[in-house]
Amino acid sequence: MTSSFVDLIARKRDRGELTPGEIRDLIPAYLAGEVDDAQMAALLMAGLLNGFTDAEAGALTQALVDSGRSIDLSTLRGPTIDKHSTGGVGDATTLIVGPLLAAAGCQVAKLSGRGLGHTGGTIDKLESIPGLRVELTTEQLLDQVARVGVAVASAGDDLAPADKRLYALRDVTATVEDPALIASSVMSKKLAGGAAHILLDVKVGAGAFMPDLQQATALAERCVAIGTQHGRRTAAVLTQMDDPLADAIGNALEVAEAIEVLAGRRDGPLRDLSVEVAASALALTGQDLADSRVMMSQLLGSIRLEGVFRDLIVAQGGPSGLFDDHWQYLPRAPVVQDWSSEPGVVQRIDARRLGEIARRLGAGRQRLGDQIDPAVGLEVLVRTGDRVEPGAPMVRVHARTEGAAADALAHLPSAIEVADRARGPLPLLLGSVGLSDAAGGV
Amino acid sequence: MTSSFVDLIARKRDRGELTPGEIRDLIPAYLAGEVDDAQMAALLMAGLLNGFTDAEAGALTQALVDSGRSIDLSTLRGPTIDKHSTGGVGDATTLIVGPLLAAAGCQVAKLSGRGLGHTGGTIDKLESIPGLRVELTTEQLLDQVARVGVAVASAGDDLAPADKRLYALRDVTATVEDPALIASSVMSKKLAGGAAHILLDVKVGAGAFMPDLQQATALAERCVAIGTQHGRRTAAVLTQMDDPLADAIGNALEVAEAIEVLAGRRDGPLRDLSVEVAASALALTGQDLADSRVMMSQLLGSIRLEGVFRDLIVAQGGPSGLFDDHWQYLPRAPVVQDWSSEPGVVQRIDARRLGEIARRLGAGRQRLGDQIDPAVGLEVLVRTGDRVEPGAPMVRVHARTEGAAADALAHLPSAIEVADRARGPLPLLLGSVGLSDAAGGV
Repeated sequence: MTSSFVDLIARKRDRGELTPGEIRDLIPAYLAGEVDDAQMAALLMAGLLNGFTDAEAGALTQALVDSGRSIDLSTLRGPTIDKHSTGGVGDATTLIVGPLLAAAGCQVAKLSGRGLGHTGGTIDKLESIPGLRVELTTEQLLDQVARVGVAVASAGDDLAPADKRLYALRDVTATVEDPALIASSVMSKKLAGGAAHILLDVKVGAGAFMPDLQQATALAERCVAIGTQHGRRTAAVLTQMDDPLADAIGNALEVAEAIEVLAGRRDGPLRDLSVEVAASALALTGQDLADSRVMMSQLLGSIRLEGVFRDLIVAQGGPSGLFDDHWQYLPRAPVVQDWSSEPGVVQRIDARRLGEIARRLGAGRQRLGDQIDPAVGLEVLVRTGDRVEPGAPMVRVHARTEGAAADALAHLPSAIEVADRARGPLPLLLGSVGLSDAAGGV
Repeated sequence: MTSSFVDLIARKRDRGELTPGEIRDLIPAYLAGEVDDAQMAALLMAGLLNGFTDAEAGALTQALVDSGRSIDLSTLRGPTIDKHSTGGVGDATTLIVGPLLAAAGCQVAKLSGRGLGHTGGTIDKLESIPGLRVELTTEQLLDQVARVGVAVASAGDDLAPADKRLYALRDVTATVEDPALIASSVMSKKLAGGAAHILLDVKVGAGAFMPDLQQATALAERCVAIGTQHGRRTAAVLTQMDDPLADAIGNALEVAEAIEVLAGRRDGPLRDLSVEVAASALALTGQDLADSRVMMSQLLGSIRLEGVFRDLIVAQGGPSGLFDDHWQYLPRAPVVQDWSSEPGVVQRIDARRLGEIARRLGAGRQRLGDQIDPAVGLEVLVRTGDRVEPGAPMVRVHARTEGAAADALAHLPSAIEVADRARGPLPLLLGSVGLSDAAGGV
């Protein structure tokens, strides 16, 4: 294949298009070493600069899916739903949205990853719960979803393994930032996950992978096009990630906050976003979006939702009392210190910087394989637009040592800007793709 | 360097420019494996699509030069001149231009390569001369040029070795076709060769690397810019390579034809091009171009030129009688057969196809390391625009076996088109870069 592959690179270089068959053959050839890293890198750069078509991105996604196992959810009764967030700082929505959708009668077989970001991924967050298992066989996963309505398991290495190879290559060749390649990567894992309905939460802003709305919208459109091509009902919401989404940044801290939201005891952007994502996902199954928002809001704090969450935790080996008294089970950091600045109005909270401070505390990984400390992190006690009184705590630092806490306190002034002028709060929902009535949301 | 190299790729991807220092560091890092093939391929593709600046191409050229040895010609008296042809079919000009320039008082230390094309390179052609040595030490080279005025030696692997690595990578990643990269490759070897004056013969047309004049001109301009940046007087002529340049295609056949031209017994495009290239090169030293053409024409057939050629051959171990009776020394193929077509006017001679037929006969290599048969090849007895009488021979096939000759005869009809309508001859000189009066040429 090597010599004809040079012709494919040349065609992409010259603004031509590869056929689905060519792309289908390409990925196995790459995995087999018949196409080498240099050739793949040249093709990816040519595509990044000349643009991949939706057909090319769709075929690439299928080829990535075909490189590993796919999960067949057709035995499940009720609409199967998957959701994906492009990741940000303090994003524990999966722990809320999964149970919400299950409580609404949907089937959620969620496969998640570990984080290589400011804080851990969903799996890292779950692992801060004592005894909780995230390694489920396909049979265990399907069985639990059939019984409980929701399961959250580690995605494992056999789901679209070619994507991992390709991502490692893109990472060192400056070819990560292509919407078609990002969309193929995201959607390959969603397609392999088997759900008939896919809702994407594309984060926009300083704390997110995509800093501007135009790029984020292009990515959302790519993802929706690929999902639709493959017969999945797919939509995306575009949500703001300049402010951190949650008050908590850190693994156990985020689990605790998610439980507070599930119990109906906590308002704020994490609650609002969870309702919006869950409602949008439900709307994909044919429900009215406005009705779905009302239903999801009403489920928060309900006995029904509490039951689903408890069943989820217990089914995966966690403590049955977690929902009622989570701090009895979740690990707590030994050093807790509050930080406050000059009084004034909060002008800007830099979610990315807060995420980096949390990572320095041990809440996230610098590189794959790094150990995460589940207990440490930050609680952000203010939001953009809040007036801060003199001496009022703004951030609570949860650290392993006094030294680590001091380091966090020293870095916090660069992450939160306070000034003596009025400032409104930031909107949460910035747009959507593939939904008829997202403007009615938060 | 790996992580900051990703930033360099990203900058080139985003239409930025690399600094000379960055490019200077890049090539040693690549050779040392700190930058891998995939990263280099991504950078080359980004540069190909977004364009390399002259400053980048110049810095790359210098980095390629610095990867190997450079030859110091400063001990030679008289202007040092190098010429380079981008290669075509039947291009034996070096064997004529080198002696012409030496006879005109210049110093020509020519380092040539073996061919990986339709026919052999200059070194392969020279090796068809019994006893002739092409492996000269730098000392032998300089000594011979000082005595004879001209030496033609094998370039060896230590001249811009990074170019060889880079070319191998470009070859499999569809990044060969970039004028800045081609120019850097060509000019790195010319700069390392040490001559103060460099004349490039850029071939244009079906038989050449660059099929169209616009691309060829862009390449010529790049080369001239790089040479000038590095303090060398550099110019280029653009010459037609639709028709084969010479009547002969094949190694010994081309040596024989070159001797015929040197002796003043043969007219035609090979003679005309050799005069033009030699005159243009001499013009770089400050001579008037028109005067130089007259001088070069007068040198052909002169005792002086004959003496230079004889000295060149003898100095490198060849037979002293070669000039006077070359077929006594050059190898001849055992099977010679003539081919003719329907009568009419020659409309088109496809130099590339003729080159491929010659290669099938054994005159060229399919891959590096293939053995060349010095005796075989083609003599083309007609030119575009010639009227061919019934039964008149048009091509003479020189083959090792009857079977090989039959194969060549079977392929010839696809290479030469004859029809019953008038057709003018093709012009030879299509343009020039860096010369004040090239339009006065052939």
